[in-house]
Parts: sequence; C-alpha cells; structure tokens
Amino acid sequence: MSLTPLTLRRVGIDTFREHVAYLHRDCTAVRAEGFQALAKVEVRGNGDAVHAVLNVVDDAALVGPTELGLSEEAFTRLDLPAGHAVTVQQAEPPASIAALRRKIAGERLSREELHAIVGDIARMRYTKVELAAFVVATHQFEMDRDEVLHLTEAMIAAGRRLDWRQEVRGGPVVDKHCIGGIPGNRTSMLVVPIVAAHGMLIPKTSSRAITSPAGTADTMELLAEVELPLSRLAAIVRETGACLAWGGTADLSPADDVLIAVERPLAIDSPAQMVASILSKKIAAGSTHLVLDIPVGPSAKVRGMPEAQRLKKLFEHVAARLQLQIDVVITDGRQPIGRGIGPVLEARDVMQVLENHPDAPADLRQKALRLAGRVIEFDPDVRGGTGFAIARDILDSGRALARMNRIIDAQGRRPFDWRTPPVAPLSFEVTAAHDGVLVGVDNLALARIAQLAGAPKAAGAGIDLLCRLGDTVRAGQALMRVHARFEADLEFARRKALADPAWRLGTRDELPRDVVAGLSEA
Amino acid sequence: MSLTPLTLRRVGIDTFREHVAYLHRDCTAVRAEGFQALAKVEVRGNGDAVHAVLNVVDDAALVGPTELGLSEEAFTRLDLPAGHAVTVQQAEPPASIAALRRKIAGERLSREELHAIVGDIARMRYTKVELAAFVVATHQFEMDRDEVLHLTEAMIAAGRRLDWRQEVRGGPVVDKHCIGGIPGNRTSMLVVPIVAAHGMLIPKTSSRAITSPAGTADTMELLAEVELPLSRLAAIVRETGACLAWGGTADLSPADDVLIAVERPLAIDSPAQMVASILSKKIAAGSTHLVLDIPVGPSAKVRGMPEAQRLKKLFEHVAARLQLQIDVVITDGRQPIGRGIGPVLEARDVMQVLENHPDAPADLRQKALRLAGRVIEFDPDVRGGTGFAIARDILDSGRALARMNRIIDAQGRRPFDWRTPPVAPLSFEVTAAHDGVLVGVDNLALARIAQLAGAPKAAGAGIDLLCRLGDTVRAGQALMRVHARFEADLEFARRKALADPAWRLGTRDELPRDVVAGLSEA
Repeated sequence: MSLTPLTLRRVGIDTFREHVAYLHRDCTAVRAEGFQALAKVEVRGNGDAVHAVLNVVDDAALVGPTELGLSEEAFTRLDLPAGHAVTVQQAEPPASIAALRRKIAGERLSREELHAIVGDIARMRYTKVELAAFVVATHQFEMDRDEVLHLTEAMIAAGRRLDWRQEVRGGPVVDKHCIGGIPGNRTSMLVVPIVAAHGMLIPKTSSRAITSPAGTADTMELLAEVELPLSRLAAIVRETGACLAWGGTADLSPADDVLIAVERPLAIDSPAQMVASILSKKIAAGSTHLVLDIPVGPSAKVRGMPEAQRLKKLFEHVAARLQLQIDVVITDGRQPIGRGIGPVLEARDVMQVLENHPDAPADLRQKALRLAGRVIEFDPDVRGGTGFAIARDILDSGRALARMNRIIDAQGRRPFDWRTPPVAPLSFEVTAAHDGVLVGVDNLALARIAQLAGAPKAAGAGIDLLCRLGDTVRAGQALMRVHARFEADLEFARRKALADPAWRLGTRDELPRDVVAGLSEA
Repeated sequence: MSLTPLTLRRVGIDTFREHVAYLHRDCTAVRAEGFQALAKVEVRGNGDAVHAVLNVVDDAALVGPTELGLSEEAFTRLDLPAGHAVTVQQAEPPASIAALRRKIAGERLSREELHAIVGDIARMRYTKVELAAFVVATHQFEMDRDEVLHLTEAMIAAGRRLDWRQEVRGGPVVDKHCIGGIPGNRTSMLVVPIVAAHGMLIPKTSSRAITSPAGTADTMELLAEVELPLSRLAAIVRETGACLAWGGTADLSPADDVLIAVERPLAIDSPAQMVASILSKKIAAGSTHLVLDIPVGPSAKVRGMPEAQRLKKLFEHVAARLQLQIDVVITDGRQPIGRGIGPVLEARDVMQVLENHPDAPADLRQKALRLAGRVIEFDPDVRGGTGFAIARDILDSGRALARMNRIIDAQGRRPFDWRTPPVAPLSFEVTAAHDGVLVGVDNLALARIAQLAGAPKAAGAGIDLLCRLGDTVRAGQALMRVHARFEADLEFARRKALADPAWRLGTRDELPRDVVAGLSEA
C-alpha cells in the first residue's frame, strides 16, 4: 500500500474497455511493495478511485518514477486533471469473486450474488480473465430461468434507465430487435421510420459491428450522426417519435457492453447471455413492448426449430417477470437479407426500399413490413392481423421515407447519395464453377469475406449478392461481387472466397422444401 | 493488411506474458485498415512474426505514425533491432480456436486438437480471454484420462526437453514435487541436497510465488542465484548432481507458464490441469522418477481423502503412459510446515534443519526426511523401507549441508546469515483471545496475511508461527508474529488478521483424532 502521493499523468494509449495504469520500475510503489506487471491496482485521488491493470514501464519519457500514468479511458473515468496527486495500492479482489468461483465450480447463484457480480463488471473491476471465466462458466452450466431473470435485473440496475411515461401517457414504448448473425439484415432502419410514422414511440439504440461486417449503427452513420449524448437523444425521440442511434454513449446496461467485448471473440452466445443482454438494454431504454426476431438456419445463430422454441420460451419467461410485453417471431435465417453486405451497400438497399425503387430488394422489404406490422399491432387501437397492411401503406405512400428524413435531420444529416453509393472501387466476382441450382449458402463465410474485404471500417467495402437460394445458374455466372478499398484487402477476401466457397451448387431435389415452394414469409 | 513497412521501436513497457503492439492513431495501418484497440495483429520482419494485442496511441512521443512499437517481451521475441522494417496485418485467429470452441461447447478433444491448442498457447497466439476460456472449459467439463494424457504430451512437445541419459547411464533421474497450498512447506531445499548427497541426479526447477507468500525459487534466491541459463544449469547438475533453480528461463513446457498466469488468479486447480502442468514440467526436465506429495486438509488444495485418491490415480495413469515412475505420498495438510512463512523466515528454517540446530522445526525435518527417503528408494541398490534411515544419516552427518553448500556455490552464492536472518523490522503479534486448545488453522488466511505483510517481494516479511495444532494456550499468549517492512503493509496485515482469524480455539475433544495421537507422519 503506497500512501506516498504520485503525480497523475495522462498516457495517450487507447486500451479499450481495459483500464491500464503505468508505473515506472523505479517508482517506490513498484520497488517497495512488490507490484508486478498485470497486478490489479486501485488508484485514488480526491475521494474517487479507479481499478486498473498495471504495466511496469522502463522508459522515463513515458512515466517518471514519481508519476502514475493512466490509459485514456481510465484517465477519463477518474476525472482528475493531469498533475493531480494520486495514491496507488494493491486492489483488493472485487467482493463478488467468491460468487464467480462458485459459478465456475458449477453452483447456482442467488439474486444477490448476480447483482454483486454485475455491479463489479459495470464498474470495470473485473479483469479480462475474470470476465472470460464468467462468460464461459455461465455458458457451460446453463443458468436456470431465475438466474437469467436475476442477471437481467442486475444488468438493468447497473446503469441508467430512460423513462418515456410522460411522452406516451400510458401508451406503449416499442422496440424491435433481431438476435443477429444474418448478413445484410438491416430491417431496423425500415421498421423504425414506419412505426414512428404510425405514431408510436420507438427509441432505438443499436450496436456497432464487433465481429460482423456491419452493425445498424455503422450503416446508419453513413446517413446521420449516431453518437448522441443522452439529452439530445431524448429530444430527438420527443420530436420525431424515434431515433436510430448508437447505444454505447447512453450508459444503458453498461455491464452488457463490457461482457460483449469478451463474448464476441469467443463466439459465445449462450441463451442466458442473449436474453439478459437484449432484454436489459431494451428495458433500460424504457421500452414496454418488443418484437424479437429469431432467424433460424444452418449457418444462423440458432440452427433449428427446437432450439428456437426453447429460446423463445426463455425470452418470454424473463420478459413477463420484468413487465415487458414481448412478441417473438421466428424467421427464415438460411441466407442473407437484402443484396448488400457492408455499410454502404446496406444503406443503399435500405434507401431503395424507402424510396420504393423498382430495384429494391424484395426480401428486405417483405421482412421489414412483417416485423413493422407486428410492432404496430402493439397499438391497442389496431386490430390483430392488420399491422402488415398498415405498415405497407405507410411505406408505399412515402410516409416512411419522410419520417426517416426527419430522423436523419434531427440526428444530423450526412451526405449520402443512395443512387450513386460510394462503393469501394476494387472488386472481383465469384462465379459458378458449373451449371446447377444454389442449394446452400454459408452466412458465416459471407460475413468473413466481407470483413476481410474491409467492412465495416472501410464503409464502401463488402459484398453485393447477385443471386439467392433456389436460383438456377450457369457455369461462369457471377454469384456475388466483392468490393474492397485496398488491393491487399481484396486479395485476402479473394483467398478466403476460394478456400471456403460460401455457395453450394446442387440439384433442385437437394433444396429444402420451403425454398422450392417460395419462402414462407408473410 | 498493411504491406507498407513501419519502423520497429522498442516500447519500454513490461506487459508480462501478453504481447502488446503500439500503433499511432494516424498510422496508415490504423486509419485505412480498420484496426481497433485490442485487435490481434501479426507483426512480421525478416521472415519472423509475433502476434500481439494492439493498443492505439495518441502520443507521438511514444510511437510516431510511421512506427510500430512492441512491448518488452514481444520485442525480445521478434528479436530484431530497433529501426528494422516491419509490416503489420490483422492476425488470423489461431487455427486451434475451432477446437477451443468445441471444448467450450462440452465436446471431447482429440490428441491432434490438444496438440494444436497447446502449440498455439506456447507460441503466445491466444489472448487472455481465450486462455481463460480454455482453462474454465477444461475445468468444467472434466477431461477424461486420455485427454489429460494428450494435454500433457502436447505440453512437453511444445518446449525443450532435457536429456541426462549420458550422465546417469541407465540410472534414474529423480525429482520431488508438492502440489502446493501449504505455507512454509520448503522441503525441496532439504530433499534435493540429501538425495544428491546419496549420489542421485536431481535437477530441480521450481516456481516463484504467483499467489502464495513464497515459492521455492523466491526462498532459494536468498542463498544463491536461481535465474540460470540452460547451459549453466546443465553444468551445475553435472558437477553437483543437483540444482535448485527457477524454471522460467529453461523453456520447459512453456504453455504451462502461460496457462498458470491465468489459472492462479482464478484459483482454478482442476485435476486435469494439475496433472498436465506438473508431469509435463518434470518429463521435459528429463526426470524418470518422481515422488509426488499431496497434502490433504480442510484448507489445503485437496480437502479430503477420496479426492486425494482420485487425483493419485490420475497422476499414476498419465505418468505410466509417459514412462515416468511415480510414487504418490498423501500427507497431512492441515497446517503449515515449519515455523516461517515468507522467503527469509523459510530460508532460516531450512538452514536450521541442514545445520542440525536444536531450534530447527521438527515437522519440516521429519517431512523432508520422509520424502527424501521415498526418492532414495528409487535407487535400485536401496532396499525398500530403508530410505528414511539413509536420508537421516545423510542429514545428521552434515553431508546434506555440505552438498547444499556445493549447490549454492555452483549457482552463485548470495550473502545470507541464517543465524541473524534479515527479518523485516516492523511486527505485531496475534494472541489468543481466551484459554483453549488450538483446534483449527486456516492455511489460506495465513498465506493472505503474509502476502499483505509484503511477502514474497519484501523477502523479510511474513509470519513466524509460535504454536501448532493441538497446543494448549492461555489468554493473551502469542500465536504468531507478523513481520513487515512498511507501516502500511503491517496495518493491512493486521486488519486482515483481525477480520479473519487464522486460528480456531476450542477444547481438546474438538481435535481430529490423529492430532491428539500425534501426527501420523513417519
């Protein structure tokens, strides 16, 4: 424990979601008290404290022996000026670690234990190693329904919570969510303006891509600002009935943001974590009604109907206990939705649908109308079964486009011409090796190719799909076009496309029945 | 993928077992190709490559826009001079991640999959998150015996392997190991010189403390150098028949070193990981025969006899398949061994035993003789049951001390006077609250108090135990003395000792039977 004050220094290193403290090897705190690299330390100043992982520094230009450096996010969190006196001591392990160890050992956690764990996670008191242990342990020993409920509750309690009761006066606050994994599936950017045009409040926050080629926030960002402080976001929702913003600035279910950073690289999507993550975000954002889309397909997150049904029941159970009305829709997840994969190409698809352009991808339009219809049916004045037609009228009449323009203007318009979208200049086509029928497509392979091509950071990179399941193709016919900004990215994507063909060619009798009959969406 | 070369720079930050690459936010690789903080990158130069986690830097004094910085260990690993041209690209996830995901999903891994995982771990290709996931997943879905065997094999194959066949000409190469968790248990520093004096080859490498108040390497380091390059270590073993060195420099089972850094903070010691860790180190060090000590007690790693028996069988199964002769000894782990806890106090205990000093702790002497006797019985010329007496003769005659002095001189003697050991100057005593019999002691609480007092970094800090289980004490009588170098450490240790008393006072009939009868050691 060092009570000798050190001088606070801001170290210009972005360590993303992990607080790092830098101490010189000759600092008395390091020499005398046995701090080792990667030890967890507590830095205190002016009554506040942050926990950080220690890096020991040998270069006095970075931090001197009487200084303590903090990485960008930790410095911001401690919120003291550079030069301020701080002390550093070994951090006691977070109190909830005992509960974490019980979960690792396979035990059931109580409501209080889950609240303690989630609280420590939200305060960034867990190391990456501890976070990963929590994620894997709760994945393996499936949590029971009550544990999932308590986890969700705890995640809501650890952050802010929006309240729209004044705005809606007893009416519903609605939202729509897809559990993800289907490339191109940008229905939110259609459902939100349609539903808002119907007069309902839909304050939608979305994520950025972490392991996918685009998140709704990445695509929306081409059209408008998405990083909005909470107060502006609230004003925009009051003005337009909606928003399409990035959720990361709002401090809604912050533990979820921390956990996702660990879950995504491990490709872990356990039912418990999916339910807690999605429902905590929605409830914290003030939603009272939610339409949830679960796509099912061999390369979707959910691979079969029994699994989809189990997941549906778990969502329904937890939502009911938390007074959230939920309508779960199980959809066809065997192939991407729309033509484009990657921010620019997806934004083009969305705008084509809103503009009622003849080239607009029919599947994206159809799915968005279906989901919007279900949301609209939360309106007590709408008769069951009429939502789809209402949504279609709103879209066909141009009222959805008008509402989208109001939302874009309110958030801050960015120049984007959907007729000449800034698609990345380099490209290659993937062609059919022989004649046949397209009987399979691998969503994961498509996503990876689009990422290697540069999406989402290179917004114009990605894939334009030129065919769909069930299409008959000729040898040499182009199946898709891959766009990249840099030669090297193009080459990477090309190698991946060769090594791991995303399309499977076969004969008509290999097609699953309902693809032959036409996709059963309505 | 950036093929634009960057200039390599050494960044004086010790990130311990985690390679970090630093790129400036304005570096073309960051701007153009969408690297995000914490992305995994591959840095190439001169045909070699290291994988590292990316930190994005905003301070050009640290790295400029055309530079690439590497943390100390990564820089050393890439082994190129500062200023050399390097390229950076997004690292493809290690090929074995698919197998890791299968284990997380609860599946059984094949020999090839385990070799792939361990190989990637040894090459530092796994992130902390992936390492933690592997550790928790293999902990939860208990690995079967063949998986443990293959894991052990893979850990041996991933590093160097010493070969003493020339030295021993068909004779045994022996070792002794304790699975740990018992404070003060420094028998290795006695067993090694006794066994070497008997004429057997015992090349012992030990660990430093990670979460305990002292490892054998920390204690031995007070008497001699312990960080020895492999070539010197081999020469010392050839000269003295033994060594007592730190294992971290020898590249023996390097994946184990990486995994331990994750297992310790999570307090995970699954049977599979214990067996693979210990046996891979011993076999890589060239041992053919091993005595393994499993202490059992309510606050030891192994809490009961059935668990100890299961663990013993697993060790025996895997050792047999790998042609290692193993003799597993289950010992009393209900309380610390010796008086001192912490490097200086433990070194004093060890030297008192070697010097046959009247104050030498009898339990440490007894246990060391018992273990040394078992090792000596690996000698084909020694009759079963006579090892203990041989060991005692070697110790009583001063030959063990003489051999220890040869080992110390060969490794490089450091000044240490066991008669006036440099115990930390500040201290307090923990006293009995009332009259009674000591019926329980908590090894974990003692270890934590010693750590808070500053051990092992403050070598003279720690605990001197003034009583043992079964002792009758009076109110106010001192049970132990805690030593610290700094007031703040002393205060921390004092608070812990008050909050979490390590000793339990009761009546004689609460004592477990064999403590009443005298400890059943032989």
